[in-house]
Amino acid sequence: MQRVSRTSIKGLLSQLQAKGLETTSIGLSRCRSSFNQHNDQSEKRRYGKVTTVLLSLTGGITYYLYKDDIKNNISSFINVHAFKIQNSPNGREAGARRAELPTYTMQQVSEHDNLINGIWVSYKEGVYNITDFVRKHPGGQSKIMMAAGGSIDPFWMIFANHQTDEILVLLESMRIGNLRSEDVYKHKDEDIYDPYALEPVRNQMLHINGKKPFCAEPPPPMLVKNFITPKEVFYVRNHLPVPYIDEENYELELAAEEKTMKTFNIEDIKKYPQHTITSAIMCGGNRRSEMGAEKPLKGLSWNVGAIGNASWTGAKLSDVLRDLGVKEEDYNHIQFEGMDIDPSGVPYGASIPISKALDPRADVLLAYKMNGEDIPLDHGYPLRVIVPGVVGARNVKWVNRIILSKNESPSQFQQNDYKGFSPSINWDNVDFKTAPAIQEMPVTSAICCPQKDEKITVAKDGTIPVKGYAWSGGGKKIIRVDVTADQGETWHIAELVAQDPDAKEGRHYAWTLWSLNLPVDKMKKSVEIWVKAVDSQYNTQPESFKNIWNLRGFLCNAYHKVKVNLG
Amino acid sequence: MQRVSRTSIKGLLSQLQAKGLETTSIGLSRCRSSFNQHNDQSEKRRYGKVTTVLLSLTGGITYYLYKDDIKNNISSFINVHAFKIQNSPNGREAGARRAELPTYTMQQVSEHDNLINGIWVSYKEGVYNITDFVRKHPGGQSKIMMAAGGSIDPFWMIFANHQTDEILVLLESMRIGNLRSEDVYKHKDEDIYDPYALEPVRNQMLHINGKKPFCAEPPPPMLVKNFITPKEVFYVRNHLPVPYIDEENYELELAAEEKTMKTFNIEDIKKYPQHTITSAIMCGGNRRSEMGAEKPLKGLSWNVGAIGNASWTGAKLSDVLRDLGVKEEDYNHIQFEGMDIDPSGVPYGASIPISKALDPRADVLLAYKMNGEDIPLDHGYPLRVIVPGVVGARNVKWVNRIILSKNESPSQFQQNDYKGFSPSINWDNVDFKTAPAIQEMPVTSAICCPQKDEKITVAKDGTIPVKGYAWSGGGKKIIRVDVTADQGETWHIAELVAQDPDAKEGRHYAWTLWSLNLPVDKMKKSVEIWVKAVDSQYNTQPESFKNIWNLRGFLCNAYHKVKVNLG
Repeated sequence: MQRVSRTSIKGLLSQLQAKGLETTSIGLSRCRSSFNQHNDQSEKRRYGKVTTVLLSLTGGITYYLYKDDIKNNISSFINVHAFKIQNSPNGREAGARRAELPTYTMQQVSEHDNLINGIWVSYKEGVYNITDFVRKHPGGQSKIMMAAGGSIDPFWMIFANHQTDEILVLLESMRIGNLRSEDVYKHKDEDIYDPYALEPVRNQMLHINGKKPFCAEPPPPMLVKNFITPKEVFYVRNHLPVPYIDEENYELELAAEEKTMKTFNIEDIKKYPQHTITSAIMCGGNRRSEMGAEKPLKGLSWNVGAIGNASWTGAKLSDVLRDLGVKEEDYNHIQFEGMDIDPSGVPYGASIPISKALDPRADVLLAYKMNGEDIPLDHGYPLRVIVPGVVGARNVKWVNRIILSKNESPSQFQQNDYKGFSPSINWDNVDFKTAPAIQEMPVTSAICCPQKDEKITVAKDGTIPVKGYAWSGGGKKIIRVDVTADQGETWHIAELVAQDPDAKEGRHYAWTLWSLNLPVDKMKKSVEIWVKAVDSQYNTQPESFKNIWNLRGFLCNAYHKVKVNLG
Repeated sequence: MQRVSRTSIKGLLSQLQAKGLETTSIGLSRCRSSFNQHNDQSEKRRYGKVTTVLLSLTGGITYYLYKDDIKNNISSFINVHAFKIQNSPNGREAGARRAELPTYTMQQVSEHDNLINGIWVSYKEGVYNITDFVRKHPGGQSKIMMAAGGSIDPFWMIFANHQTDEILVLLESMRIGNLRSEDVYKHKDEDIYDPYALEPVRNQMLHINGKKPFCAEPPPPMLVKNFITPKEVFYVRNHLPVPYIDEENYELELAAEEKTMKTFNIEDIKKYPQHTITSAIMCGGNRRSEMGAEKPLKGLSWNVGAIGNASWTGAKLSDVLRDLGVKEEDYNHIQFEGMDIDPSGVPYGASIPISKALDPRADVLLAYKMNGEDIPLDHGYPLRVIVPGVVGARNVKWVNRIILSKNESPSQFQQNDYKGFSPSINWDNVDFKTAPAIQEMPVTSAICCPQKDEKITVAKDGTIPVKGYAWSGGGKKIIRVDVTADQGETWHIAELVAQDPDAKEGRHYAWTLWSLNLPVDKMKKSVEIWVKAVDSQYNTQPESFKNIWNLRGFLCNAYHKVKVNLG
């Protein structure tokens, strides 16, 4: 399924040209150039105006690239579905005309694109003053500012996770007026395409946390059945629509700041010495549901399954960079861009320190295989970055551009998203600049069997079987897993049943599976099982979420506590 | 004071020879060879018998090396003091003859040197059956077994920390008889020398946790006065008597397993490129007093001062090893031996993984300067190993032998001492083989001002000034310090007032000093201040000691909690 013909921006355009269709002369390079300009001028420019908004088919081609005939042909060229906004019941009135409110023109809305004049947006027929909300936007201030002074409708086609009752009601609470009828953003079948129409088919066993972009995790018991997570069971955390891949024309560009140093195709990458490592990848928000139970959080409510453990094969990034004569002292960071692109043309991006990229012991890979096969589309085909021991967000999928730079990635996801804060920081006082981007992840563990509220038969020896995983970032090995059924009065040491036998000292990237028969008090109707892991730096987990709570709900590594009923 | 003429074993012997004194032909090489034999056969051999016991002047020359005339001349050659065992009041009866008990000969005692026959020792006129105690020995089973079937008297001259009421009473509880008068170990002024007689003069402000070996820490407020800890304030943790240093004849031997590869003098080491790093060194037992308050512990009761932050200058071990063509795949570990030697001739020892030693980014130094000057004698003159980010115990002082090996150091301190365990492990069920040796230390922090029970005036703005340090091992940077005065209901972010500005990415070895004016509830008579740090891996500290308690009292990194009175 994942090998269906997909196409990159460049590939799509060239195919259209081959069909004799009229296109603009803007190919990938110009697209790219405009993205850079976008990035560089992100503080100055306004994005997302209805008049220029990017109605994304490939996620990166702007609306002005399309002539009508192209649009129609694209429509038939790939089998897309018209995008339908489906509101949940209580939010369905959001954006409807309200007779008691004044009417504004889009011109008036567009004058409110800054903090001095205030920030307005339109949604359907509604006009909203979101000035006070901007810095509380869970997706980050820079993201919401892309729609400032314009319609949010096209953005919400890509970030379809906004179509919830909660968010629509919140939006409506900021309502100030109606939009003049002729300015209302028009959804027409012929010019609105669902950028999610060609997502790969997924395992139906996955629990879906978000459909668009697709985010899903396996049930916990399924997770610990295998040391190497099968691709069908591996959690998916996409930030944007899965891009269209044109294998034949795929290119990876390597640049030093703005200047291209070299381009590679997949075969070029495969010529470098091949390395295979086993590495877990974990989402920064794994176990967020537990932190959110302590105090409410926005964001996907992951259970314990936003982690998977796979073998990854590819070229060492350090080999590629050494081959190009890259010197550590010339740069501070190395940025990665994916082919997944948001409505304003900005690709998914992230960066890691240059020292890690250049350190052969850090084992950063440009990976083309997962578990011995081509990487599945959901996991980054044809090439993804593997930064073992580092939060999933930096393991950029569908990578097609690598930039050596003095600066971290300008991406929203690097600057204003995957960061940790003190429990005292809230959406009113947060300053994302004060915290470093999450890179290596702290030690964690989770109980996968039994699950919460499960009824368990106590064995004759007075024990119940408990299984789970443990992992620590930065190459730290798990050295011990302690489990208690009596709030820490007695700790029992779990057996570490699976670890990577090939890991080198200080380079333990795989997870550890553990298991034990946990003694319990038979007289009790229920017990709460707690687990904590210790890594080779003898770091261990904090006990509660209260003291590590952070507004974005990352780094949820307090003791995992699962209450079960005894039978 | 620290430059007084001191002498190594080899140097001492050569000086004696130069004086025309008769000595055996056993020089350093034979000493060394006998040490190796000792190590290799540690399971089979019995040590410490009265008849062959090492009456250590230099800590390494065995009794049989001495002829009477040498002994007398040594006596006058260096100005030593007779060693006097001084019992504390309640333990003073330990070892005294008890008429109601049977009498044994030393021959009978010596037959009890194994677990099958039982393990006996003598102390003064007493005979003790310590069979059940052996595995509970806080100093480790192998250490106490050195005295099995013999007298413990000479060992307790070196490990003088046994001379406490608690230990003497414990010993007496195992009493089974009296030793025949003629077999009683005899302390005579002319053949008993105090191996601690020539210790350097120390700063009287240091709080002494143990005199012999010398262990002391500065008062907490003094600790955080300077980012670079002055040598006089730097904590001292010696495991054995400070060795006698003969600068002129000092040699560092580098061996591959048993085979010497090369010897260096200090000038040879100084020819390598010189590197200076700022690195904290922390004792594995720092803050043990807090863990011991949770549940009693044996071991030195360190407050928060068993840490210091200095600049260290030396050659990179990786440069030295690369120069010798050492290949990582040939070894697993690199062992270090100090010149400080126990009564049975075994030097202090430790090891680190070979990968760390060979990694230029790990910054392991053979250091000859501390804070820009010769390293003080208490801190390892003329050469010590600096393994930044790693527990103090592996930063071997007075190093004179480095061994590339497949194995970890056989030293007691590597095998059976500096390791962490689950809270459920006690002296009855501990198996030291189950835990890895502590290397990189977990994240920690401490409040240095105010101190416990101090009375603090609340400022007009409702705050009290709080200061301290934070540190994490493995090169992790401290990114945040959170402080609370209300059990975590509100956390306040401290200002990080001093960090190493020259640290490279991922190589932050120095500590961080922090400070804040902490808002407190003025209406309260007292508040408990808590601190926790977060490092660049976003690891943080566990909340309480209960769940990290371990029988040796290491890795005491729970929140530091200081109760103060408000005035």
